[in-house]
Amino acid sequence: MEKEKDKKIEKISELRQDLVTGDWVVIATGRSKRPEEYAVGERIREKEDPEKKCFFCYPEETGQEKDVLIYGQGGGDWSLRVFPNKYPAFTRSREPKHFDEGPYFGMDGIGYHEIVVTRDHEKQIANLDKMEVAEILDAYQERYVDLMNKKSVNYIDIFHNHGKEAGASIPHPHSQLMAIPVISPYVKSELDGAEVYYIANRQCVYCTMIAWESEYGNKKRVIFENEDFIAYCPFSSRVAFEVWVAPKKHKPYFERISNAEKISGAEALQVAINKIYKALNDPPYNFYLHTSPCDGKDYPHFHWHIEILPHTATWAGFELSTGIEISTIEPEVAAEYLRKM
Amino acid sequence: MEKEKDKKIEKISELRQDLVTGDWVVIATGRSKRPEEYAVGERIREKEDPEKKCFFCYPEETGQEKDVLIYGQGGGDWSLRVFPNKYPAFTRSREPKHFDEGPYFGMDGIGYHEIVVTRDHEKQIANLDKMEVAEILDAYQERYVDLMNKKSVNYIDIFHNHGKEAGASIPHPHSQLMAIPVISPYVKSELDGAEVYYIANRQCVYCTMIAWESEYGNKKRVIFENEDFIAYCPFSSRVAFEVWVAPKKHKPYFERISNAEKISGAEALQVAINKIYKALNDPPYNFYLHTSPCDGKDYPHFHWHIEILPHTATWAGFELSTGIEISTIEPEVAAEYLRKM
Repeated sequence: MEKEKDKKIEKISELRQDLVTGDWVVIATGRSKRPEEYAVGERIREKEDPEKKCFFCYPEETGQEKDVLIYGQGGGDWSLRVFPNKYPAFTRSREPKHFDEGPYFGMDGIGYHEIVVTRDHEKQIANLDKMEVAEILDAYQERYVDLMNKKSVNYIDIFHNHGKEAGASIPHPHSQLMAIPVISPYVKSELDGAEVYYIANRQCVYCTMIAWESEYGNKKRVIFENEDFIAYCPFSSRVAFEVWVAPKKHKPYFERISNAEKISGAEALQVAINKIYKALNDPPYNFYLHTSPCDGKDYPHFHWHIEILPHTATWAGFELSTGIEISTIEPEVAAEYLRKM
Repeated sequence: MEKEKDKKIEKISELRQDLVTGDWVVIATGRSKRPEEYAVGERIREKEDPEKKCFFCYPEETGQEKDVLIYGQGGGDWSLRVFPNKYPAFTRSREPKHFDEGPYFGMDGIGYHEIVVTRDHEKQIANLDKMEVAEILDAYQERYVDLMNKKSVNYIDIFHNHGKEAGASIPHPHSQLMAIPVISPYVKSELDGAEVYYIANRQCVYCTMIAWESEYGNKKRVIFENEDFIAYCPFSSRVAFEVWVAPKKHKPYFERISNAEKISGAEALQVAINKIYKALNDPPYNFYLHTSPCDGKDYPHFHWHIEILPHTATWAGFELSTGIEISTIEPEVAAEYLRKM
């Protein structure tokens, strides 16, 4: 469905590699702010104009790019649409241009950055029904399958920010897809861990956890289950009320989700978010999918899943310095509370 | 100087290991909050009582534990003191107690959590003179050397939070030391990267970067230099106006810093923080030391340094999901601006 224009390429960002760790960062170049704009007083001025039309209610009138996907009954009546981000983090381009500077290495920030918008301005996922959430998963899948075949796309990150404190600059409910040439360090760490575990134990580490949570472990961290999916607070939760939603069967690739699984997955996701919504009084949160890269390799030991992180604390020096997060509630206590919602 | 009491041990937290990645999290147990306290409305009530005496101006009167270190001229006149955190993240204990639950693994959260307080309630590091900052480095070193020899301490994290948004819950300027039984995943990643680089190139990766920044790279990212130290915005900055302060000579171990280096290091740190303070109008920030673990092994290829991260943006779904951070200003532009301050 996508109509890609090979416009003259404007450089928006660079991907630069950390020389020590090999991790990547994105450095905005083309549309970066002026240094003066970072001063504390300046940032307070970034206020919304309440009269301004919502970009996502009226995409045609607010200068959004043309849809790459639209669901609905036709006649202008849409239920979900996907369009390229007006302020993308990456340039749509097929050819990654590498560069170096002395010992350092980087490449132009190329990739695809799309927005998935549901119709209702007010109705967040907590309050949608499962078929409406299934439609969101449907859109994720349809766009994933299209983007994964683009040259130079090796990983597709799908995420959802809810609430200003969780980074949602526009209040209208929306998710984002970022299709990028490098593999996410966090996913890499999970891929490596899953492989090491498989070699040592001849079973998937996620299947092991899910079996323990669902069958042997007194279900003390489980908050919801249906035939295909489980939602639970992980043993090593990084934040208070963290919830993972995962298929119970071993599935490395999100994009191969069946229609039936989309509905049961949507149910588990919606119920989990609704419980967090009720327990924490509509908190800001992020969720994202972790799935196998689309770099042409096989990842038979990985197991796709969704991680939901309510925004309940500030990362401070210890977390930033060590990568060790401090969660102030036991996941077992959080799960017990969420089960009651 | 420390007088350690082997009191009856109260369990404060657990260190739990992520089964997939091997990373650690800290889960507060003993003093964790009730689930109801996480709701959005609840958190707003956490207001400070303006009449309340500052904990750190009057440690004796506000029930702090006894100092483990005090600098000053005597007669009650102190300039810096270190005491155990009244609300530590870890229990002081010599024996790590391991546990498992099904496939999972963890240990009681043991360790040392101390606070380094300078005298003046108002005067932050940006406004101290270099000898006052050298005294802070002196205290870091003195406490480090004491804690590193404790049984079960394998890594000591030293960090400083400034401003509420950067996690400083008490406004009085202070740093923290956390001495823990596990090695920080972020430092592990740097240690591994430094070793791989050394094997491939027969030189320290940090020395390589510093030589490039200071000598060959037009100094475009350098904001300050003296004989022993350099302060620069790293090529792959993760946040806007990130600054690293590093010794120019190859030094794996912070705790071996000489008195002369403490003064020149303090000068570089103070100047860097002062420039950030002026450029961004007193922003919240974190800084921390990355140094070799104290687990009895040698780390000849590592190079200790300080990373300063101004708090200029919110981590949202993409960053949380991927570990790839998006910085909205080029480090070269940030450095040029900081040089002018």
